[in-house]
Amino acid sequence: MSAPLYEGKAKIVYATDDPQVYRTYFKDDATAFNAQKRGQISGKGAINCAVSSYLFRVLAQAGVTNHFIEQISEREMRVQAVEIVPLEVVVRNLAAGSLCKQTGIAEGTAIAPPLVEFYLKDDALGDPLLTPDRLRLLQVATEAEVQHLQGAALQVNTLLQAFFNRCGITLVDFKLEFGRDRQGQILLADEISPDTCRLWDQQEIDPEKRILDKDRFRRDLGNVEAAYARVLELVTQQAEL
Amino acid sequence: MSAPLYEGKAKIVYATDDPQVYRTYFKDDATAFNAQKRGQISGKGAINCAVSSYLFRVLAQAGVTNHFIEQISEREMRVQAVEIVPLEVVVRNLAAGSLCKQTGIAEGTAIAPPLVEFYLKDDALGDPLLTPDRLRLLQVATEAEVQHLQGAALQVNTLLQAFFNRCGITLVDFKLEFGRDRQGQILLADEISPDTCRLWDQQEIDPEKRILDKDRFRRDLGNVEAAYARVLELVTQQAEL
Ligand SMILES: Nc1ncnc2c1ncn2[C@@H]1O[C@H](COP(=O)(O)OP(=O)(O)OP(=O)(O)O)[C@@H](O)[C@H]1O
Ligand SMILES: Nc1ncnc2c1ncn2[C@@H]1O[C@H](COP(=O)(O)OP(=O)(O)OP(=O)(O)O)[C@@H](O)[C@H]1O
Ligand SMILES: [Mg+2]
Ligand SMILES: [Mg+2]
Repeated sequence: MSAPLYEGKAKIVYATDDPQVYRTYFKDDATAFNAQKRGQISGKGAINCAVSSYLFRVLAQAGVTNHFIEQISEREMRVQAVEIVPLEVVVRNLAAGSLCKQTGIAEGTAIAPPLVEFYLKDDALGDPLLTPDRLRLLQVATEAEVQHLQGAALQVNTLLQAFFNRCGITLVDFKLEFGRDRQGQILLADEISPDTCRLWDQQEIDPEKRILDKDRFRRDLGNVEAAYARVLELVTQQAEL
Repeated sequence: MSAPLYEGKAKIVYATDDPQVYRTYFKDDATAFNAQKRGQISGKGAINCAVSSYLFRVLAQAGVTNHFIEQISEREMRVQAVEIVPLEVVVRNLAAGSLCKQTGIAEGTAIAPPLVEFYLKDDALGDPLLTPDRLRLLQVATEAEVQHLQGAALQVNTLLQAFFNRCGITLVDFKLEFGRDRQGQILLADEISPDTCRLWDQQEIDPEKRILDKDRFRRDLGNVEAAYARVLELVTQQAEL
């Protein structure tokens, strides 16, 4: 076996025999509010690994180049090794989370066209929101890369929105990470899961009951494991159709 | 006399006999960090009233329409009554304050071209930074108004930078407020003073000694009154040339 390269809050990244390939291991550890809140969501690692694997496959089929190679165990996938661009790219279809807290916009307000936002991926600074000018100033990505990230994020949104709709789930918002491969090509990376998406059950009207994502953990709403399991169930059903 | 219309943290706004004219009274009260820190800077009201009066006159002469009519006492000016646009428009020539805290950019880093940033003027929300997309979403100003604010802010920066340079002061950054008059025309309003600008004495190299603005109060650097008085002295000298 190979050595751990990096342990994050939700995953461990391992090198493999092939320098262009990493192995990611999905943990049950959950954190929120820049790791001020910590806990475990039992079974989360396996669920997020499976959900991410499905979604990366769906996106690859639609032409969105991403790091996913294959799922190799319940909690592990093989991925293309990339140098992560230190940005969190967030797409918002409905207002929720920090957007509401910061602007006073009511949760659930429809945002059309969807908002693409860039946050600096820097735990010490608390992942601050970047204006386009600040993004330019920080030079974490070239102008061309930023354009590419913006376009790719919107394309992923269109595809995931359609997919989740077929699952009976509303895609409220989500966070993407991208990286550069050896050739400098930008690939979608990291994970796409109930940890990184806000997902609302379209069968439920109750604003708390409908939540199928990490907000159940953030806001102590209970039934966290059941919600994650429900997402996997709905995604699996749809992916097998 | 007329009744107070609104008491803010630094000024009191009074109606006058003329509905198109307000009287603003400059207090010695000082607040920082969204009013979590409170105090008094003795003599500040008179200094800020005088400095603002000078600067509004300099700007008017250069064609920047603003609310200033006349200074009527040590702490009072007559201004055009406007409906304040709930935005704080910040121009940055050198990195300082929240920009450094949020992005990790070192204090004093030159920013060229200057950054124009919009913050939502909302104490309850902590005056959050707005991206252009969030600004659009909140609809606090029309697209044309935002364009106008951006252009006016840059014009004010060019003029104030030149003026302060002649005073031997570096204009690091500043905050502007604008309002709409009865005809819907946008006027520069509020105040321009050591409370709302970062000003560095060009004679001093010491990074703390050179500070001539509210950062002395924010950061408990001492000699706050002397710094404000020094700004008035340099501005008065220059304005009389
Ligand atoms: N294909 C990849 N190549 C290299 N690194 C990757 C790849 N995919 C994801 N990563 C990185 O793996 C790390 C571990 O993931 P995890 O989700 O645990 O991190 P995190 O704790 O959320 O964030 P942080 O990056 O701050 O540690 C992340 O930094 C992520 O950016
Ligand atoms: N010409 C004007 N017409 C109407 N209001 C004005 C004018 N110029 C300034 N104001 C407003 O006067 C108020 C009082 O000023 P002051 O600086 O004390 O407010 P503040 O406490 O800093 O901010 P806040 O607006 O949050 O109270 C501010 O809200 C400012 O926007
Ligand atoms: Mg992560
Ligand atoms: Mg004020």
